[in-house]
Amino acid sequence: MRILQVKCIDDIGIISKISTVLCQNNINIIKLDEYVEPEQKYFFCRAEIEGDDHGVELIDEIKHVLGREATVSLRGPRKKKVVIMATREPHCLGDILLRSQGPLNIEVQAVIANHPDLETLTRRFDIPFHLVSHENLSREQHAAKIAEHIDEYGPEYILLAKYLRILPPSFVGRYPNQIINIHHSFLPAFIGANPYHQAFKRGVKIIGATSHFVTEELDEGPIIEQDILHIDHSYSAAELSALGRDVEQLVFSKAIKYVTEDRVFVHRNKTVVFK
Amino acid sequence: MRILQVKCIDDIGIISKISTVLCQNNINIIKLDEYVEPEQKYFFCRAEIEGDDHGVELIDEIKHVLGREATVSLRGPRKKKVVIMATREPHCLGDILLRSQGPLNIEVQAVIANHPDLETLTRRFDIPFHLVSHENLSREQHAAKIAEHIDEYGPEYILLAKYLRILPPSFVGRYPNQIINIHHSFLPAFIGANPYHQAFKRGVKIIGATSHFVTEELDEGPIIEQDILHIDHSYSAAELSALGRDVEQLVFSKAIKYVTEDRVFVHRNKTVVFK
Amino acid sequence: MRILQVKCIDDIGIISKISTVLCQNNINIIKLDEYVEPEQKYFFCRAEIEGDDHGVELIDEIKHVLGREATVSLRGPRKKKVVIMATREPHCLGDILLRSQGPLNIEVQAVIANHPDLETLTRRFDIPFHLVSHENLSREQHAAKIAEHIDEYGPEYILLAKYLRILPPSFVGRYPNQIINIHHSFLPAFIGANPYHQAFKRGVKIIGATSHFVTEELDEGPIIEQDILHIDHSYSAAELSALGRDVEQLVFSKAIKYVTEDRVFVHRNKTVVFK
Amino acid sequence: MRILQVKCIDDIGIISKISTVLCQNNINIIKLDEYVEPEQKYFFCRAEIEGDDHGVELIDEIKHVLGREATVSLRGPRKKKVVIMATREPHCLGDILLRSQGPLNIEVQAVIANHPDLETLTRRFDIPFHLVSHENLSREQHAAKIAEHIDEYGPEYILLAKYLRILPPSFVGRYPNQIINIHHSFLPAFIGANPYHQAFKRGVKIIGATSHFVTEELDEGPIIEQDILHIDHSYSAAELSALGRDVEQLVFSKAIKYVTEDRVFVHRNKTVVFK
Repeated sequence: MRILQVKCIDDIGIISKISTVLCQNNINIIKLDEYVEPEQKYFFCRAEIEGDDHGVELIDEIKHVLGREATVSLRGPRKKKVVIMATREPHCLGDILLRSQGPLNIEVQAVIANHPDLETLTRRFDIPFHLVSHENLSREQHAAKIAEHIDEYGPEYILLAKYLRILPPSFVGRYPNQIINIHHSFLPAFIGANPYHQAFKRGVKIIGATSHFVTEELDEGPIIEQDILHIDHSYSAAELSALGRDVEQLVFSKAIKYVTEDRVFVHRNKTVVFK
Repeated sequence: MRILQVKCIDDIGIISKISTVLCQNNINIIKLDEYVEPEQKYFFCRAEIEGDDHGVELIDEIKHVLGREATVSLRGPRKKKVVIMATREPHCLGDILLRSQGPLNIEVQAVIANHPDLETLTRRFDIPFHLVSHENLSREQHAAKIAEHIDEYGPEYILLAKYLRILPPSFVGRYPNQIINIHHSFLPAFIGANPYHQAFKRGVKIIGATSHFVTEELDEGPIIEQDILHIDHSYSAAELSALGRDVEQLVFSKAIKYVTEDRVFVHRNKTVVFK
Repeated sequence: MRILQVKCIDDIGIISKISTVLCQNNINIIKLDEYVEPEQKYFFCRAEIEGDDHGVELIDEIKHVLGREATVSLRGPRKKKVVIMATREPHCLGDILLRSQGPLNIEVQAVIANHPDLETLTRRFDIPFHLVSHENLSREQHAAKIAEHIDEYGPEYILLAKYLRILPPSFVGRYPNQIINIHHSFLPAFIGANPYHQAFKRGVKIIGATSHFVTEELDEGPIIEQDILHIDHSYSAAELSALGRDVEQLVFSKAIKYVTEDRVFVHRNKTVVFK
Repeated sequence: MRILQVKCIDDIGIISKISTVLCQNNINIIKLDEYVEPEQKYFFCRAEIEGDDHGVELIDEIKHVLGREATVSLRGPRKKKVVIMATREPHCLGDILLRSQGPLNIEVQAVIANHPDLETLTRRFDIPFHLVSHENLSREQHAAKIAEHIDEYGPEYILLAKYLRILPPSFVGRYPNQIINIHHSFLPAFIGANPYHQAFKRGVKIIGATSHFVTEELDEGPIIEQDILHIDHSYSAAELSALGRDVEQLVFSKAIKYVTEDRVFVHRNKTVVFK
């Protein structure tokens, strides 16, 4: 089984063209999700296919019938390579490390952190740990040092597992649609720092988390997944924060799952997610 | 916008065939969901299409390329005609009557009940109410009298809004995949009567509801939708029952929505629901 | 069964004092919830009690042992009188009217609207409908006319079932902690108008609703209940709005339930809700 | 802060008696939950208290005023000692090991398994691992060997993290209300083996998990927590099983949290859980 993803400007007959190429190559479509974005008339399609596809040739054939500006990818359900960036909190990192051994189809190549706290946890899973302290470095310099480490590994995705520093545009622009963050609130509420303290002060009855791709504008990237937990008056700001970790962990691992199973398209500042 | 539904035995090239017919008729596919059931290799497809389709001719063209045994339907997003059957409880009936004026795309033709209690509620919405008492009638005779009323209206679906009597095979067989029931538990737990009392005795922490098509085997028809509510020790059996009405109502209206928006296929004893 | 509510400044021995008074009056406590707010040391207590209480005398005895500044109330589980204000949308109004006949322990005295659209729906339930148009009236004048109607009925609560106009401080101040609103977003996200359009533009994956007491600051009153629904890329702004009505309806009826079952305390800008 | 738990036959004045003892000892009640079970008139109370309590003396004073048959316990919010039993699946074990380092207030003393698969994972967290193979042993003999290991550690709770063998009455009876199991379905549906296969065959739209205390009757012990996930037609039995692990993990860690925070009372075959 392989996953075919196609994104292009919509027109009558696109599915017909794609499916005819597949048919001619003796390929069966097991599951197909298609969606046309109605405002800008963009076409998105994800197909799970079976048969003797010929990889690059198949992509070329499809591009040939659709026109060159179509985005076409074809990937097997293999493990995706990821590098994780973190700071001090263990919950999201630990959860991903555990899930990388089973439900999540990822291979964690390395963990990079700006504090040493998570080294022990990382090494327990026999994963290389790189401490890149930000002390005495400008934001740009620090990010450049991290990028050096990342580029040694060449991951497909960079997972910010509670990496708490802002990344400069130079870094973000280097990995477009490849950096996945977990944000500690249901954006767009409580943008910025201390969302649980804000939530406590406002007396809300739910807290949430948001996983999104990182773009140059802080907390404004395309949202992949969000969820919430119900709370009540009896939670202190500290307890909200503790509970928030649960929903962060849950939302983050779902977002990673969707992205690494090739279920996610990015279109301008939104995502199309075929679950 | 119209909805195309296709169900047939799977083969390579089916989507290609369908989409080529659509393309030749200058019809655009806005949204397409396809699924191949892996065990018996059945193909299910729902497409939202736009363009000058020619109704019957289009169906015929598609059947022509797929083979005669394919099931093909094409329906506009018009109101579906329904008859509601009920007994005494007002919550599901009232909710559907309200929603028939907005979110649910249905036209309620009549309400048929074996008790007079719901007449006032029904008449408030200017809907005909037929009392068909079961007294002094066999189950068969009673169902036959109800069927007479139903057949005057010729509805597309029959909604059992807490109709508490068992329907005989003769009745069920007359309306295949047309009768939608709401069951007061998450089947297959607590089959049969008094599920809330059973739930109370067992001390469960969630209660649920199930909406399903009615088949000859009680509570065994294809499930359309299920959901639950969290409860705790402090609920009495009576309170569970009250709370259960909320989840019954919610699940029932969702199931009706899916069915009447042509999102549901029945295949043997299961459903395929493209949400 | 009656509900005792006590709110006062915390001190050692408060529960002992209250429960000793109850015991001396031969009253049993069936269920008790107590919470001390840790920052300002406020004490909140709700008890379901059984026995021959003597109403006013019991309140006086409790106030006597706690000190005069304690807030003490004792109410039976009787129907609370409410007046509903609405504008044009039927979903929240219809749901409350239906639930007032069963699960919600309220008596709807009247519906007041600034448009005539909801008169038919209201009259179906044999409830008086008052049209108070805002045309050619200042906000103050309009609110004053509405208040006149309300004061004829003397309700315990005023339910804003999608009443879409801003109420002036003079009106809000007249009914402190008595006006319950349903807001079409999970506050504090998407404050103000058109939240579903904002949600659509931002590409969020959940939409929500918030029910809160109305205070002079728009959308800033104490939150009673919030909930969300999951959505995906395929929902248009109009569909989000339609779906939003479901969660609005759900959240509103829960908030009304909690308030009218005497489960809610207001403390500064937050609520304590004993579910 | 300490947790006071009281369970006894209900009578008028119990809260008065307890709170008066606390008051005389200069102890403040921060949060109190009380519930009277209406059928057998049992009283349950959990209080979070602050002040210079004197431990055993306080318990004795309370027992003195309530009568000797009352069950009274007083515990600090310290880490509870647990031994984990498992077989081969890593998801629940891994999750608990991770959470034992933060959100769960437990100290994992050892892991005991009847297969060697989980040794590596366990040792990563520097926890002793005991392999007790069941080969060539009767069920009784095997359980007795496990009990020997457990009794060396003297844990307060035994967590069955997907321990897939049935435990004999001799073992279960040795640790009353101390053994917590996670069951792979929302009991009472799909009792027994292969629930995900059963769920697949029935075409249900939700799958669930149940955490309960273990009693001599298989899958019939008092339920602590349950939850579900929504699924659709496209999940294979294997995928259901994979997804089921997520909800098992979630439900199990919640149940452990409630029990180890002294929020759970067992009464006959049910629990009272003050969340």
